[in-house]
Amino acid sequence: MPGPTTRIAHHTAEAIYVRGASLVDELIGKLTFTEMMYFQLMGERATPAQAKVLDAVLVTLMEHGITPSSIVSRLIYDSCPEAVQAAVAAGLLGVGSTFIGTMEGCAKNIEEILAAPQDAAGGVDGEAARAKAIAQRVRAAKQPIPGFGHPHHKPDDPRSPRLIAVAEEAGVPGRHIRALRLLAKEVDAAWGRHLTINATGAVAALLGEIGIPQPVMRGVAVVSRAAGLVGHIREEQVDPAARQIWDAVSSRIPYKGN
Amino acid sequence: MPGPTTRIAHHTAEAIYVRGASLVDELIGKLTFTEMMYFQLMGERATPAQAKVLDAVLVTLMEHGITPSSIVSRLIYDSCPEAVQAAVAAGLLGVGSTFIGTMEGCAKNIEEILAAPQDAAGGVDGEAARAKAIAQRVRAAKQPIPGFGHPHHKPDDPRSPRLIAVAEEAGVPGRHIRALRLLAKEVDAAWGRHLTINATGAVAALLGEIGIPQPVMRGVAVVSRAAGLVGHIREEQVDPAARQIWDAVSSRIPYKGN
Amino acid sequence: MPGPTTRIAHHTAEAIYVRGASLVDELIGKLTFTEMMYFQLMGERATPAQAKVLDAVLVTLMEHGITPSSIVSRLIYDSCPEAVQAAVAAGLLGVGSTFIGTMEGCAKNIEEILAAPQDAAGGVDGEAARAKAIAQRVRAAKQPIPGFGHPHHKPDDPRSPRLIAVAEEAGVPGRHIRALRLLAKEVDAAWGRHLTINATGAVAALLGEIGIPQPVMRGVAVVSRAAGLVGHIREEQVDPAARQIWDAVSSRIPYKGN
Amino acid sequence: MPGPTTRIAHHTAEAIYVRGASLVDELIGKLTFTEMMYFQLMGERATPAQAKVLDAVLVTLMEHGITPSSIVSRLIYDSCPEAVQAAVAAGLLGVGSTFIGTMEGCAKNIEEILAAPQDAAGGVDGEAARAKAIAQRVRAAKQPIPGFGHPHHKPDDPRSPRLIAVAEEAGVPGRHIRALRLLAKEVDAAWGRHLTINATGAVAALLGEIGIPQPVMRGVAVVSRAAGLVGHIREEQVDPAARQIWDAVSSRIPYKGN
Repeated sequence: MPGPTTRIAHHTAEAIYVRGASLVDELIGKLTFTEMMYFQLMGERATPAQAKVLDAVLVTLMEHGITPSSIVSRLIYDSCPEAVQAAVAAGLLGVGSTFIGTMEGCAKNIEEILAAPQDAAGGVDGEAARAKAIAQRVRAAKQPIPGFGHPHHKPDDPRSPRLIAVAEEAGVPGRHIRALRLLAKEVDAAWGRHLTINATGAVAALLGEIGIPQPVMRGVAVVSRAAGLVGHIREEQVDPAARQIWDAVSSRIPYKGN
Repeated sequence: MPGPTTRIAHHTAEAIYVRGASLVDELIGKLTFTEMMYFQLMGERATPAQAKVLDAVLVTLMEHGITPSSIVSRLIYDSCPEAVQAAVAAGLLGVGSTFIGTMEGCAKNIEEILAAPQDAAGGVDGEAARAKAIAQRVRAAKQPIPGFGHPHHKPDDPRSPRLIAVAEEAGVPGRHIRALRLLAKEVDAAWGRHLTINATGAVAALLGEIGIPQPVMRGVAVVSRAAGLVGHIREEQVDPAARQIWDAVSSRIPYKGN
Repeated sequence: MPGPTTRIAHHTAEAIYVRGASLVDELIGKLTFTEMMYFQLMGERATPAQAKVLDAVLVTLMEHGITPSSIVSRLIYDSCPEAVQAAVAAGLLGVGSTFIGTMEGCAKNIEEILAAPQDAAGGVDGEAARAKAIAQRVRAAKQPIPGFGHPHHKPDDPRSPRLIAVAEEAGVPGRHIRALRLLAKEVDAAWGRHLTINATGAVAALLGEIGIPQPVMRGVAVVSRAAGLVGHIREEQVDPAARQIWDAVSSRIPYKGN
Repeated sequence: MPGPTTRIAHHTAEAIYVRGASLVDELIGKLTFTEMMYFQLMGERATPAQAKVLDAVLVTLMEHGITPSSIVSRLIYDSCPEAVQAAVAAGLLGVGSTFIGTMEGCAKNIEEILAAPQDAAGGVDGEAARAKAIAQRVRAAKQPIPGFGHPHHKPDDPRSPRLIAVAEEAGVPGRHIRALRLLAKEVDAAWGRHLTINATGAVAALLGEIGIPQPVMRGVAVVSRAAGLVGHIREEQVDPAARQIWDAVSSRIPYKGN
């Protein structure tokens, strides 16, 4: 039984190779971070369209201001300033099912739609039927549908049309976006009102367009958020807030006797 | 007493702003990840040279094959596959003083050199004297000098000249690189043999060139390594190694009775 | 709308109170760690039986030798020896669904059995029927049944009868243990062979006996494992293995070209 | 060159051994958590005095109400409720140099005092001189002295005399406590006013009394705090506060334009 192998990297005394390419001769100074990330993750060079789309997704997810993740990173930084990596890691533990899980749920729904058998004419009738089935199923279960709706941005999340426009201008194949639009139409019908495609829904479609497998999509969000958290740690270094965070929370959660 | 504030992000019902720029109108589709990271972290737009240099650094640090960090991420992924963020976070906890601390140590030495008082002619005599003092001080203490030497890559780490060349071609000011070269010359003299400027040494100079403050440099490495770890998690998803990692380690650390 | 409150702790200038008891006058020197943990978690003093059972569970789960968690803690300790907390935290991220999730799955099955409506005679016929239904359902789905079976310990996991004996000698009510036994009987019948109640199965019953809610059971395992990981970190301090762990893993996962 | 070994645990098909003792026959049901933790960590059975002291320390450090660690655990739990271990791990990352480092600093000072050469009469004159030197050195550097002082508890931290009393009643050797008292006397003299021995100072002395090496003392605090954090996660499960924590922090850190 052959054991596991790695296809990612190796080195000799003279050179370092990532995915078979010389780090020094072929990658440093030639690839952007985003192109390198795609190459390292997928084992293939990103096309310009794929790099453009991945950049748009990474830019979108990086920063959301004062959030649970950034609060956590600030508190942990204050607790152990010599270990910046711990502050980032702690914040990243917040990139979990509650906030980013909807991206994965939407991606699964898109995949279910795209797995519809093609009819003879290559049409999308099967896909539309699946979109309708998904929307009705989720609605009947009285559950939220991942990738749709937003508490603040109404009627529409402004990021979603922008993300889709960037992808279409870049020239992606368009299958995942089409599936998302089919789903959006059926969601509005099933709910009897307009629900916006939100940013996580649009991101799910875009990552699908560039071939990122659904099980690793959360990892893309994690990378982007890592950069955002470093920014908060930097702000904490120059304008510390951790002690007042502690104070604000203590005031909001008073002690109540047993 | 005014409390802490944030200058990073805010939003209205219609729009999201990062560092005062509209995420939808000015950032998504217009900035690369690297430009966005610089903008979010520094509060200023990256010049083309700064973006080029930051890309080169991020590309360099992303991937090192099977390392403690990637081993950790693979094991934690196997332990809790539904929480990809935990696998990345665990691996990032390995981006600590042992492996990346040399970058910070080198950056501090560069800053010490650059803080030399300028002489009337604007020359670098004071800097050369400081470089010599640092090299001799560290050597006398029989300590390794951060940013120099490499166990495998001899006589020279191939990444360092490439990184410096990318930065110089991009047109950075060059002060930190000059200081690093002054230090390198004095290190060779103090040690009585050639020690290569290694990748962490070159990275320290490059991040200094683009204005990244030393206390947050480790965060840049963390972001880059996050992307590398996502690649290892993806490989673990399709070609699992965790159980054989466990087995290999158990075999290497036998039980020895008390 | 009233906001959240905490019932756990508060302090004055003179005293600290946990769950309403004076830390100094009523807890330090009077409670064991286990009694304090129960009190802090449950808001009620542990009976001697409850403390005895919780001790038995914590002792059982603490240490398993070279495991993914202990490998991770050793590697992260070597990467950042000044942050022992990060080494422990990283290892604890491995206390996830794969290794400890079976405890929770078994606890849910026990709860399903115990939720059977009582018949007029107060008998357990309803419980037996539920146990049978669970065993048959899981078997039909060709899934493993949580809390049963063990790769090494055959025919029986030696920890399980010991744990149950400790609990029964301590005088717990016995409902959860009875339900587990009902389930064990039906598991053997459904599988057509003997499957041992394993340690996580017995632990699930014991924690149920002492009132620990299922959603927080994993937390009990986390606390116990934290102590085990500290022991591995101490061994790493005096007999370092991290570099040889790295070497052993690198050898086991060779590079294979793309 | 012999490789690393482990002395902690091993198992056969029939039995599991920790530190050479049969888990089933000698440990489960016979040791408390605290005794097991001591045995696993130190490789020796705890004496009753050692167990008593370790219990007192673990009870003291477990719970401090709404703190950075517990805030972090609550936020991460809300972000990923299916991974309780991640919520605990994130909170533990806050058990760093800022809050627990004083324990280690005090332990180092105690060790420095105890390393004084013994005079012919076995007296403590050398120790007193070292205590004086430490106090004067720290005071001259205008630094805080670890293990002394408390912002709320004045004139004295009520936990410290209680901890020392528990240890003395248990019958510890008393060297570390004596050294701490010598230091306390010199601290008051050097500062020209009374500084209380705080809880981390007393804990440092107590852990020294029972043989816990200074480099792993932080690990003891981590274990105790893990239990405390599980209690906060449980409270979050039944009385969620995370969203209001977020809101309270957002209100306290307003956006300020660039």
